Amino acid sequence: MLVLPDSRPQNTHERLDAVIVGAGVIGLACAWRAAQSGLRVRVIERSEPGSGASGVAAGMLAPVGEATWGEEDLLDAALASHRMWAEFATELADAGGADSSLLRNGALHVALDADEAGELRRRYDLMRSLGLEAEWLTGRDCRELEPGLGPSAFAGVHAPHESGVDPVAIVSALRQACVNEGVEIVTGAPVTAAILDGDAIRGVATEDGAEHLAEATVLAAGAWSGSAGWLPEGAVPPVRPVKGQILTLRGSPVEPVAGRIVISERVYLVPRADGRLIAGATVEEMGFDTRVTAGGVYELLREAYRALPDVAELELERVVAGLRPGTPDNAPIVGRGAIDRLVLATGHFRNGILLAPLTAEGVIALLRGEAVPRELGVADPARFAKVAT
Amino acid sequence: MLVLPDSRPQNTHERLDAVIVGAGVIGLACAWRAAQSGLRVRVIERSEPGSGASGVAAGMLAPVGEATWGEEDLLDAALASHRMWAEFATELADAGGADSSLLRNGALHVALDADEAGELRRRYDLMRSLGLEAEWLTGRDCRELEPGLGPSAFAGVHAPHESGVDPVAIVSALRQACVNEGVEIVTGAPVTAAILDGDAIRGVATEDGAEHLAEATVLAAGAWSGSAGWLPEGAVPPVRPVKGQILTLRGSPVEPVAGRIVISERVYLVPRADGRLIAGATVEEMGFDTRVTAGGVYELLREAYRALPDVAELELERVVAGLRPGTPDNAPIVGRGAIDRLVLATGHFRNGILLAPLTAEGVIALLRGEAVPRELGVADPARFAKVAT
Repeated sequence: MLVLPDSRPQNTHERLDAVIVGAGVIGLACAWRAAQSGLRVRVIERSEPGSGASGVAAGMLAPVGEATWGEEDLLDAALASHRMWAEFATELADAGGADSSLLRNGALHVALDADEAGELRRRYDLMRSLGLEAEWLTGRDCRELEPGLGPSAFAGVHAPHESGVDPVAIVSALRQACVNEGVEIVTGAPVTAAILDGDAIRGVATEDGAEHLAEATVLAAGAWSGSAGWLPEGAVPPVRPVKGQILTLRGSPVEPVAGRIVISERVYLVPRADGRLIAGATVEEMGFDTRVTAGGVYELLREAYRALPDVAELELERVVAGLRPGTPDNAPIVGRGAIDRLVLATGHFRNGILLAPLTAEGVIALLRGEAVPRELGVADPARFAKVAT
Repeated sequence: MLVLPDSRPQNTHERLDAVIVGAGVIGLACAWRAAQSGLRVRVIERSEPGSGASGVAAGMLAPVGEATWGEEDLLDAALASHRMWAEFATELADAGGADSSLLRNGALHVALDADEAGELRRRYDLMRSLGLEAEWLTGRDCRELEPGLGPSAFAGVHAPHESGVDPVAIVSALRQACVNEGVEIVTGAPVTAAILDGDAIRGVATEDGAEHLAEATVLAAGAWSGSAGWLPEGAVPPVRPVKGQILTLRGSPVEPVAGRIVISERVYLVPRADGRLIAGATVEEMGFDTRVTAGGVYELLREAYRALPDVAELELERVVAGLRPGTPDNAPIVGRGAIDRLVLATGHFRNGILLAPLTAEGVIALLRGEAVPRELGVADPARFAKVAT
């Protein structure tokens, strides 16, 4: 199926600047930004846009929450992308629909016992050392800020700079924004072969027999990037699926159980404006397994209940499992691939939504032959090539 | 929609012996047995057969599990119906399909701490006093019988006489058995009015305008029996909906996490031959509310995990909430109604599947003007009439 705007034949040999494999938030963000910069882009998606991790992610934009001391380079990238998100969201809302706006209610990190408080203190120190606004709170302070917190709230950190987006709305807005910029999005089209020319990739062929020729091929296939068997051996990035189960609870938009994102050591709870509360997420090494399990749901419900007892009254609306693109060092893989004209934009693990604006900027730079943002150094694919040789 | 076998107009004034309101296990069992005994019967169902409690029940046939000391009369009824189930199931398998057969793997009642062991001991004594086969087991014995039991198994009672059925299969078989006996089943037809003749009910009218005239009208509408506003005031039985949430877990049929029904104080786990494991059920006074809640699912998963830790690996396939027909004294209401020619067969609370054969026998007796089984004394509707005057 070919989405608007036009009906040019897919088999055309007319020259595209880039064919992007994968219509998740990463692939679509790259396509949108590339098209804005004047490049001709086609996106190839095996299923539907957002059908991978993007469609189930919570959309929390909490850069310090996902990185720790010892991962300073990754943290740099996360912070850089976080700074880009406000403008990215505003522009996207204009281009693709208002629902993509940033939810700016901040986050409350809570420790539910003394051990967790020690760990939280380290995260607080990290936030302060980075110059981020953050306030240390007693358990009582926490409950004043979020009256729904349970009696076990021991201490907390209020991080007003943290925010969230609804990734499903982001995918929808990106899709529209892409279409508006003349990007073709081909869905239901698994890639079956690379079109090679010596040591360079010249595009890809899809299951329906169509050939998509382009100056550059961008691999943005999320968890499926590591099983891109159509790439030459050695060009496939070391990406594996990391399963995450996540719950959607449904409550009142007027009296939500939490006014802001609540993050404990074992669960995060992200309220949406319509009364939904997203509770995520398990981290499981299970291969391409997206079964919802009793144990996964139990663990999420237990920790959600521990943080916010009122969740017990909420409707359990949906449970899904998604597959994050994991890498050996938890950092993404954004840069030139092992063969000519191949660009990698994958491996974002738990940070795909957060890192989308920075990744898009990096990919455009690569497509245009310009310098990638300094903060993407941590994502250089060459780090794995070196290990292999 | 009118199910086979024939196309007689619904508006016909030809005389039926009974019109039965409700196509759950109770209504269909009554209809089947009545038709077998030569009566002409029509079943009127507001939605689809089994769309109420029958469609979500676990189908455990454990008479002592649901009744306690002090409810001896109810226990008598449960035991009588339990004795009827084997033949009922065999006959039904012949008449309506093999899937309705009894699962005869027995049950293991487990106490997960010393307190629960005290309560379980009382249940064991009750079983023994009733002459039921039951064996007291240590925690180690329990784990020998069911190796999947968790370390908290403290003591147990093996009850080999207890069994189970799949209520969805039973509904399907009953439906077929009814059709084979010439019972008409009218679905998607809410009753809107009673057709009265002085102090007697002569049938019911349905939303589509059809009139269903019969010698007797049987109310078998489960949790909806108490809101049968189409009956004259004073003839509506005191039935209220009691919400129950129940989980379907999916595992291997070859290596099930339990070989038999496992019953702890707070959860029951009923294995099915196809690898499913049913975990039920909450008991909630919430009116006509069938929302699945975080708290309900959490409680069931926690207790299931406590009894059988391996459930954590099972797929959580389905969570639903059903409405049981509760009564003021937890006993069913089977007998003559407050107006002439009205028969009540409702209020079975947590025992509808178990009590279906006995209830059907009682209803046939009432329709034929014969004596109802002695054990149904506890279900006499007159007990509430007396209270009211």
